[in-house]
Parts: sequence; C-alpha cells; structure tokens
Amino acid sequence: MADIWQQLQAEAEARDREDPLAGFRDRLLVPEGLIYLDGNSLGLLPRATAERMRHVVEREWGEGLIGSWNEAGWIEAPARIGALIAPLVGAAADEVIACDSVSVNLMKLVVAALRLRPGRRLVLVEEGDFPTDSYVAESAARLMGATLRALPRADLLAALSDEVALILLCQGHYRTAALWDMAAATAAAHAAGALILFDLSHATGAVEVALGDADFAVGCGYKYLHGGPGAPAYAFVARRHQAALDQPLSGWMGHARPFAFEARYEPAAGMGRMLAGTPPILAMAALEEGVRLVAEAGAPRCARKARALSDLFIRCLDAVADPDIRLLSPRDRRGGHVTFAHPHAFPLVRAMAAAGVVGDFRSPDGARFGFAPLSLSFAEVVEAGRRLWRVVGERRWDRPEYREPRRVT
Amino acid sequence: MADIWQQLQAEAEARDREDPLAGFRDRLLVPEGLIYLDGNSLGLLPRATAERMRHVVEREWGEGLIGSWNEAGWIEAPARIGALIAPLVGAAADEVIACDSVSVNLMKLVVAALRLRPGRRLVLVEEGDFPTDSYVAESAARLMGATLRALPRADLLAALSDEVALILLCQGHYRTAALWDMAAATAAAHAAGALILFDLSHATGAVEVALGDADFAVGCGYKYLHGGPGAPAYAFVARRHQAALDQPLSGWMGHARPFAFEARYEPAAGMGRMLAGTPPILAMAALEEGVRLVAEAGAPRCARKARALSDLFIRCLDAVADPDIRLLSPRDRRGGHVTFAHPHAFPLVRAMAAAGVVGDFRSPDGARFGFAPLSLSFAEVVEAGRRLWRVVGERRWDRPEYREPRRVT
Repeated sequence: MADIWQQLQAEAEARDREDPLAGFRDRLLVPEGLIYLDGNSLGLLPRATAERMRHVVEREWGEGLIGSWNEAGWIEAPARIGALIAPLVGAAADEVIACDSVSVNLMKLVVAALRLRPGRRLVLVEEGDFPTDSYVAESAARLMGATLRALPRADLLAALSDEVALILLCQGHYRTAALWDMAAATAAAHAAGALILFDLSHATGAVEVALGDADFAVGCGYKYLHGGPGAPAYAFVARRHQAALDQPLSGWMGHARPFAFEARYEPAAGMGRMLAGTPPILAMAALEEGVRLVAEAGAPRCARKARALSDLFIRCLDAVADPDIRLLSPRDRRGGHVTFAHPHAFPLVRAMAAAGVVGDFRSPDGARFGFAPLSLSFAEVVEAGRRLWRVVGERRWDRPEYREPRRVT
Repeated sequence: MADIWQQLQAEAEARDREDPLAGFRDRLLVPEGLIYLDGNSLGLLPRATAERMRHVVEREWGEGLIGSWNEAGWIEAPARIGALIAPLVGAAADEVIACDSVSVNLMKLVVAALRLRPGRRLVLVEEGDFPTDSYVAESAARLMGATLRALPRADLLAALSDEVALILLCQGHYRTAALWDMAAATAAAHAAGALILFDLSHATGAVEVALGDADFAVGCGYKYLHGGPGAPAYAFVARRHQAALDQPLSGWMGHARPFAFEARYEPAAGMGRMLAGTPPILAMAALEEGVRLVAEAGAPRCARKARALSDLFIRCLDAVADPDIRLLSPRDRRGGHVTFAHPHAFPLVRAMAAAGVVGDFRSPDGARFGFAPLSLSFAEVVEAGRRLWRVVGERRWDRPEYREPRRVT
C-alpha cells in the first residue's frame, strides 16, 4: 500500500515543479501546517487584501471620509469589480456588476425574467440543488403569480415547454460539483422560448465558464474569488436584455441619477440598474483584491489546475479503497470540489480537520473537499489523501470527540 | 458683528467644558484641522474599528478561516449587532437584526406588511422624502397588486383609511431633519387598522427614538452609528408580528436550519427570518464597533448633545444674517442635521469645504450640515458658523473653482 502513496507523491512533486500557478501560493496567507481543502466554501486571504483593507479603512474612510465616494472611486466599485469578474465568466465588462448577495440578486433576476416572459408562468430548478436558489426562486414566482417546479437533474431540460419562463441551473452542484453543458442547456432553453439563469457560485475561478448566449447569471464572491467571508455577489445580464430589465429591488443606487433625489424611479442605463442600496465598501474592497488575483492567474489556468488537483484527489480516494466511500462527484464533467458519501461523514470530516486537513460536511452524509487552484500544491493533495487513508484505517470516526455536533461547517 | 461671534465662542467653550461626551472625540479618528459636519452622511472612523478590522481580516479570516463562522461568532453577528442597536431605538434585543441594505430591508417589510393586511391595497409615503423609500415601496406595492400614494407631509396622517395597509415614515427627513411624533403617528395608523414602518436612518444615534407600538422599522449603519461606508442596515419587527412575518427574500440564512439544506423553506423563529444571503462579515465587524461606541455613549446623551449642537448652529446662521439663507429645518422638532436653502447652495458648500468645513449639497438648493454628537465640539460649531459668515461676506460662491460639478456628495 505504501508504494501507491510514494508513487502518487513523486508524481505530485513533478507536477508542482511544472505548475504555472505555483507562484500564487505566496500571495495568499496559508496557515502553517494546514491543508485547506475548503476554499470552495471560504477562499484564503490574499496578502494584498490585508494591506488594501488597512488602506480603505484608515486612509479612505478614516481620512478621506465622504470625499472618498469620488476620490477613492467607491461609487464605481460595483461596475469596476464587475468588469474584473467578466472575463472569468466569458462576459463583456459591461454585463457584470458586483452587488448584494446571491439570494438578493436571484430575486432581482427571477422577477425580471418573469416580466420578460409575461405569458409563461413556470420556473424550473433542479431538485436538491443549493437551497437558496429554489427558496428565492419560489418566493419570486409566488410574487409574480407563477409556479416553481423542482425536477431531478435528468428530467430538467426535457421539461422545458412554452409554459416555462425561466430555468435556473447551478453550474457546479454544491454537493456533487456536477457541471452542466452550459451551451447545450442554453440552446435547449432558448429553443423552448425560455430564459436561462446560471448560478456560478461553485464554478467561477475553478472551471472555465462561458456564458455564451445565456441570459442571466449570479455568483458569489467568497469561494474561489477569495473575496472574504460573506463577500458581495455579482450578477450578469446579457447586454440585449439590459435596456428592458425591470428588476424589483429599485433602490436609489440603481437610479439613473441617484443624487438628483427625483420622485420617480428611472433605472440607470446598463447594469447600474441592478444596484439597490448603498454598497458595503469595506466588503467590496476585499472582493476586488481577491478578484484581481484570480483575474491575474486567468480562468483557463485556474480551471486546468483545479481539475488536475481534484483528479489527483479522486485517485487518492481510489487508493484509500474504503468500500464505504461512495463518490458522489462525477469522474468526468466536474467543478472544483469532490464529494463522497460515507456512513460516518460527519465525524470523518472532523477527524480529518484534527489531522490538519480542512474540508466540510454536507448533510446528510457528504464529505466535501475543494481544490482552490491558487493556493494548493499537488503534494498537499496527496498528503491529504494519505491522511484520509490513516483516518479510515484507524476508524477515527468512532472517537467520541468527533461525534458532537457543531452548528456551521 | 465680531461681538456676537466672541459671545457665541465663549458660550461654546463653556459648554465644551461641561460636555459629558467630550471624551468620545479621542476614540474617533478626527482628521487634523477638519470641521466635519457630514457625520449624518458618513460617520467618522472609530479608532477601535481600525484595530478590529485588522483582527477580523488577518486573524479571523486569514488564520481562522471557515472555522471562524463558529469560533469568531460570525454566524451570530446579525443578531448580536441587532441586540446592540435595539436600546438605541427603544426596542427589545430580539426585535432588531443587522442585515442587507435599507433598500433590501424595505422590500422585505413592505411586502410582509401587505401580506398582513390582505384586504388593503394602499401604501402611504411622504412626497419628497428619501427616494429609496418610495422607489422600493412602489416596487413592492406593484409586486403585491397594491398602490403607492405619496402625499405632502401635512396631509399624510389624514389620508389613513381602511384601504391603507401600511404607512412608511422617515424619522428625520433627509433634507429638513423634521421629526414625526412617532407615538402619535403610530396611534393614528393603528386607529385606521394600518401598519406603520419607520425609516430611522437619519434618527438613530442623533435623536431619541422610541419605537413604542410601531410595527416595523429599518435604518442604516453608516451615519450616526459610525459603521463605515455602505455599512449593513438593520431592521426591527415588533415581537407580536414575528411569527407571522412572511418576507419575500427567503434566502438560506433565514431558514430555520440553514445547514440542513432542506428542500422546503421554513423561516427561522424570530428575527432570523429577516436574513437572506450570507452576511458580509467584514462590513458587519465595522458596524459592530461603531454601534458599540454609540451604545456606550447612550441614546439620551447623544440626542441631547446633537440637539444642542444644531441649536447652536442655527444661532450662528442667525448671526450670519444672509437674507438669502432660508432655513428649511424646523427650529423645534428636528433631527441631527440642519439644512438651509440658498440660491448658490452648490458652490457655497464647496467654498465651505475649501474653508475646512465639510457639509453636503442636497439638490436642488440645499446646504446640509450634520451634528454627530460623539466627535464634534461646540467650539467647532461656532467656528463653522464664523467661516460661513466669511464665505457669505466674500460671496465666495462666485469663484469659478467652486462652480464645476462633482458627481457625489
């Protein structure tokens, strides 16, 4: 058994020597001795962000005060960060804006989509996909007198019909990391006259995303974009829809002339109309630094490396050879994380954390490990696999200290 | 003329010696030589916030990573900060939560209010009040098949009828600072069977707020609460409404069990159901420090001092004695700022800024000056008045450098 680990390790070391992204590791704060396979949940802190935050707090806010809305470019932050995200999702700079949370942006776009398809009253989502998507889509549908239908993945595209206004798909399933063929799904939606909205939270920065002819997208900033805990989200609206986009969160920052304080709401031209309230500048500054780092690395290199890292991890799982490990992630089309089901997934994830490998538990029985390409080395992945092998071999999940509940993962 | 300024200055110095909040000035970063009368737009940076931000970024995020959701108390931040804000608005700790923006919280509460009054289809707002309130209320009304009616202040309470579901009032008008008698307005709304929602953005931390029997409230964190640029907002729901509150932004963080990833949305008990997406932790941390400082000073002391400062400023305006200055703020019931109309308001505000006194221009002809009680001294207010007297005497608004437009104030 040791042979296979030595072989995997030698291969990993060779890969690390050739890794074009190896230099990015030093630009992130990687806690000493930690193998962090949870960058798909909260990305590591870029070192530049620590510096930027000191600057935005102490200089821009503390000394520049209200003048910083102009002089430090705060007012342009949503559009400026959107333009940085755009190439990571295959969009034009004026099709993406950073604002609010994924949940709030979903509300805006599901309502707007239903308004663009007034005769159609169905919204389709995947059964068992990330809950906020279906919770908010259902609420939006209810507000609009429409209905949400959640269907198994395999039946979803076949359910497209002339009653469907919108289909909402998560690119990179939050549990399995399964990917859609975005172009094919978009073509199917459009062939039925429906609109399509992608949630890119688990994709951007980890796989290549090409929005192509898609109508709408949302995504979060705190995973592979390294934007910080609860970082603002982003939204994409294809340019052809922007002029007619009628989104319900019509706050003053989305007005054509917010500082004219006009009695009537008139939406800004372009993506500006997606804004609602005043943007949280401190959180936006952190997001901008994270996005900048990912943009510098480039989506293709990030995607290639995340895929190679997670492929290697699956080979490690094969080497662990625990018959109780059941891979939930596809071996082929897959995002940046790998999830397996295990009867003792909860204490197993905790035992791994105690062994210095952070992943997360996903109810009811999933152990999820993410492969953020900017910080991880191939050698770390093999070492994580080797530690899993030891945890499994010693059945450490039976230890009582790993069995008590924790609230959040 | 000099006599009156000497007299005002002597009075100010005496007041400063007796000011129970004088010690708070050193706990804020006050830029050298600046008289900042714009804390009603963006509050000064508390020195503790600079330290807290370094900690939350570098330790909690950088080293604690995902574990900080539990270990650093990130997950409880919305409720914890809400509980700190509660005594500042006369609410119970479990009636306030910090989240999202004022605009987003307005959408939640206007829709929820219309659902609580299903037979009633009118929402009342004040004509000419802060635009985001009427923009969002109108959008919410439209989603619910209801109608927004904007009426002049004097006619508003008389328009309450059995058709009105909700009346939305801004406590502290963003231009004039005029205050409502909250108890009387609440009684009038309830007598008509309507619900009442207060926007406390311009009140909390500057005047005493007693929500009393009010149903709902929202407010922003970046003015007198010193929460930082675009700080998260807060919302209040009277305890009696919480169990039935059906708000539309049903994101995963408002679920009873967010980490169970259940297919059906079940709102959390209490104020937790007001949450939508993942909260922006960096912005929340800054808000918490600001609120803590204000809570330590206490609402009554803050209100007394803000009132005394702005009273003194009005006496300075009287001393300036420019016949073109027309006070828009009431001399009696008034919030923390003072606005006067002036035919040259825009270049006047800029000339004042050049003279070291920051206020802001409010379209079309308002010059607005705010009196944040934690940082300002009475002597600064008199000095600001004296500089205004010089600006007026020299008609500095005629100088070309003050006439070019700027985008944001």
